[in-house]
Amino acid sequence: MSAGPEEVQPRGPARLADIGRLAAFSDGVFAIVITLLVLDLRVPEYHQGELLTSLVREAPSYLAFVVSFIYIGVLWLNHHALLRLVRGTTLALSWINIGILFGVVIIPFPTAVLASALVDGDTDDLRVAVVMYALAAALMSAPWLVFFAYLRRHPALRAGHIDQGHVHAQEARPITGLVLYGLAGLLGWIVNPLLGLLGIIVMIIYHGVTSEGLRTGPLQWVRTGRRG
Amino acid sequence: MSAGPEEVQPRGPARLADIGRLAAFSDGVFAIVITLLVLDLRVPEYHQGELLTSLVREAPSYLAFVVSFIYIGVLWLNHHALLRLVRGTTLALSWINIGILFGVVIIPFPTAVLASALVDGDTDDLRVAVVMYALAAALMSAPWLVFFAYLRRHPALRAGHIDQGHVHAQEARPITGLVLYGLAGLLGWIVNPLLGLLGIIVMIIYHGVTSEGLRTGPLQWVRTGRRG
Amino acid sequence: MSAGPEEVQPRGPARLADIGRLAAFSDGVFAIVITLLVLDLRVPEYHQGELLTSLVREAPSYLAFVVSFIYIGVLWLNHHALLRLVRGTTLALSWINIGILFGVVIIPFPTAVLASALVDGDTDDLRVAVVMYALAAALMSAPWLVFFAYLRRHPALRAGHIDQGHVHAQEARPITGLVLYGLAGLLGWIVNPLLGLLGIIVMIIYHGVTSEGLRTGPLQWVRTGRRG
Amino acid sequence: MSAGPEEVQPRGPARLADIGRLAAFSDGVFAIVITLLVLDLRVPEYHQGELLTSLVREAPSYLAFVVSFIYIGVLWLNHHALLRLVRGTTLALSWINIGILFGVVIIPFPTAVLASALVDGDTDDLRVAVVMYALAAALMSAPWLVFFAYLRRHPALRAGHIDQGHVHAQEARPITGLVLYGLAGLLGWIVNPLLGLLGIIVMIIYHGVTSEGLRTGPLQWVRTGRRG
Repeated sequence: MSAGPEEVQPRGPARLADIGRLAAFSDGVFAIVITLLVLDLRVPEYHQGELLTSLVREAPSYLAFVVSFIYIGVLWLNHHALLRLVRGTTLALSWINIGILFGVVIIPFPTAVLASALVDGDTDDLRVAVVMYALAAALMSAPWLVFFAYLRRHPALRAGHIDQGHVHAQEARPITGLVLYGLAGLLGWIVNPLLGLLGIIVMIIYHGVTSEGLRTGPLQWVRTGRRG
Repeated sequence: MSAGPEEVQPRGPARLADIGRLAAFSDGVFAIVITLLVLDLRVPEYHQGELLTSLVREAPSYLAFVVSFIYIGVLWLNHHALLRLVRGTTLALSWINIGILFGVVIIPFPTAVLASALVDGDTDDLRVAVVMYALAAALMSAPWLVFFAYLRRHPALRAGHIDQGHVHAQEARPITGLVLYGLAGLLGWIVNPLLGLLGIIVMIIYHGVTSEGLRTGPLQWVRTGRRG
Repeated sequence: MSAGPEEVQPRGPARLADIGRLAAFSDGVFAIVITLLVLDLRVPEYHQGELLTSLVREAPSYLAFVVSFIYIGVLWLNHHALLRLVRGTTLALSWINIGILFGVVIIPFPTAVLASALVDGDTDDLRVAVVMYALAAALMSAPWLVFFAYLRRHPALRAGHIDQGHVHAQEARPITGLVLYGLAGLLGWIVNPLLGLLGIIVMIIYHGVTSEGLRTGPLQWVRTGRRG
Repeated sequence: MSAGPEEVQPRGPARLADIGRLAAFSDGVFAIVITLLVLDLRVPEYHQGELLTSLVREAPSYLAFVVSFIYIGVLWLNHHALLRLVRGTTLALSWINIGILFGVVIIPFPTAVLASALVDGDTDDLRVAVVMYALAAALMSAPWLVFFAYLRRHPALRAGHIDQGHVHAQEARPITGLVLYGLAGLLGWIVNPLLGLLGIIVMIIYHGVTSEGLRTGPLQWVRTGRRG
């Protein structure tokens, strides 16, 4: 308990434990949300001998399930890469993370609405459901933007091998999300709900492809480990 | 495996592993509870073409969802800070933690009652729901008080960088919760349920702001950096 | 990657990671089961202005919730102490653990049956529910017994500071559970369901008190750390 | 912070942390799915005094629950062994893992369909349910095959003590699953649904027995101890 190395070591792990519990909590939320989606795949009511017909009738709702499953997978990969940018957390960053999780947690609701509209609704209902899904996805981008902006302004939180330019460049992703999910919603509202849904799927693929971050310059941040 | 430093090290990690499983179990519970809330956001029954009207009709129940989501976020941040106070657990402390988790686990129930009363109930029902929520929140403060009191009486469990005065000062928080959530319930019962709900929201914000602990003296424990 | 210490270290952690994933998986199951219990606390259907009456009518079912919450808390503490006995896992031990988790996972079902019988059932229904709960609890003891017996026959799996006599002594606990939960069921069937329920509660308290293991001799196993 | 050993160490743990979050996320999903199964064991509606009769009537559906519980246990053990083959993850491997989890997450749906068909359906419904379960199980094998094939082509991802031949040999397992679950479905469709169900159960046992990997040569990778 003298000064020197002993003084330093217990603090380092304490820091890591912090981001560790935040990561564990977030992983728990992602794991639960991705699993809860299946709860909306309910056994349809059916008369004896008509199970197959009833299942086929529900089939369009499976599309909503698959889209949301992939969406949450994408979000988890993005979140995974997000936490690799920081080496500790503050109260503010924990709150921003709770904001991110809020967006994740609500996904099953627009998913269920979309599934219901695909099976039981008319075009008006489908329009409402697609716009609702797009709005939820657009708004979900906001706390990600706050995260990158906060990290840019607090360089002390950055993990050692991440440079400032990389963090700054990432802000383009949630802004793209905010704008294009919004446009997908508009498209679904004005033109055609299925076109809006297609727009949402394209955006999910975009976030899947860029989940490890937008490249900045000659790949300098991707190389794991520091340069020395 | 001689005596000396090697003898000390295995005890440290063994202790930490203990608190590790307690933290993991608690994080799991928090993650599940915060995610289960969305299960009460059900797709309303609707006639074709009336999805939007049905969703709008349910809108007040979303308020209950948002309040409880933030409440559990606040509780998780408080719990996160709580476990940083200790460096190991005992059977008694584990039981106190289970008491804390009991309070967390029941939140979805008063939330669902509140959501139902906001949509389908009259003023009497809303009064019952608000008082129930306030009572649950007030009683939930009790195990937190027991935790701080127990930790004060067992200084050997304190993490190295935490001083006695800090632990003692924290007892003010659950006492404030016990009294003021109770008062919010009374306010909701006697004066107006929405005023009681407002009192609950104010208290949740209070616990959010103080989640890292009440400051004691000139910030000596908050400094996260190393002194060196 | 020469021979010597580097050769030893990576294997040690690999072992620990094994029991680590088993513990994490188990903690996840415990956390989910203890939280899912609240899903059976549903908002009752009610006419406007009669929320309070409906909630009071459901009150007996809350007893089932509280008993099962404490029961799973007790089981988690027991499981926590169980995994501290071993320093690694084998395929057989993993399967025994899955057997233990099977017992944990089904608890919400007899709990829901008991809650339903307490509110809507007559004495016959309550008798069925109590016997079902007691049977589930009795059968749940079986894999714990297998765990202790297996560990006794495979001393290489024992954690360093645990002696053979301690493991052997613990077999008394699941045997007590098997017999006395069975007797509580018989009591509930023949004499009175509420008496059977009381017997179950007494047994849960017994497992709570002995969760860290039956003492063997002069406390030699409780001392954390090895003697040197 | 000089070059040399310090340069190496941060890379190891950073890699391990990666696979750590992937493992934690996967464990969370497995734990939730195995626990959610019990949600389909609902308290039957019953008239006072007829709880026992109603429970007995539902008994066949418990078979579906038990089979799926063991199935997910088997899948978790397989996944546990799978992640021990690698020492880090890439974006592609993370996506393959999400594909594996997709197969796990949908299990409760065919399980619920099967449980429903066992209680309420006729032979046609049971045939549909068994084929659906077999198809889900067969398709679930696909991402496992992709995992092994990817690992074979990216030897740098292999954990140090795993040799190329072992990884290659494991591809036989998902191929067996793909073919034989498919055959079990055909058997259930053409011959007899219960025979198909039996085929599924046999396959689950096969995957349980081989969960730690098919042996290649004189057990060189199974030896868990150190060489000395």
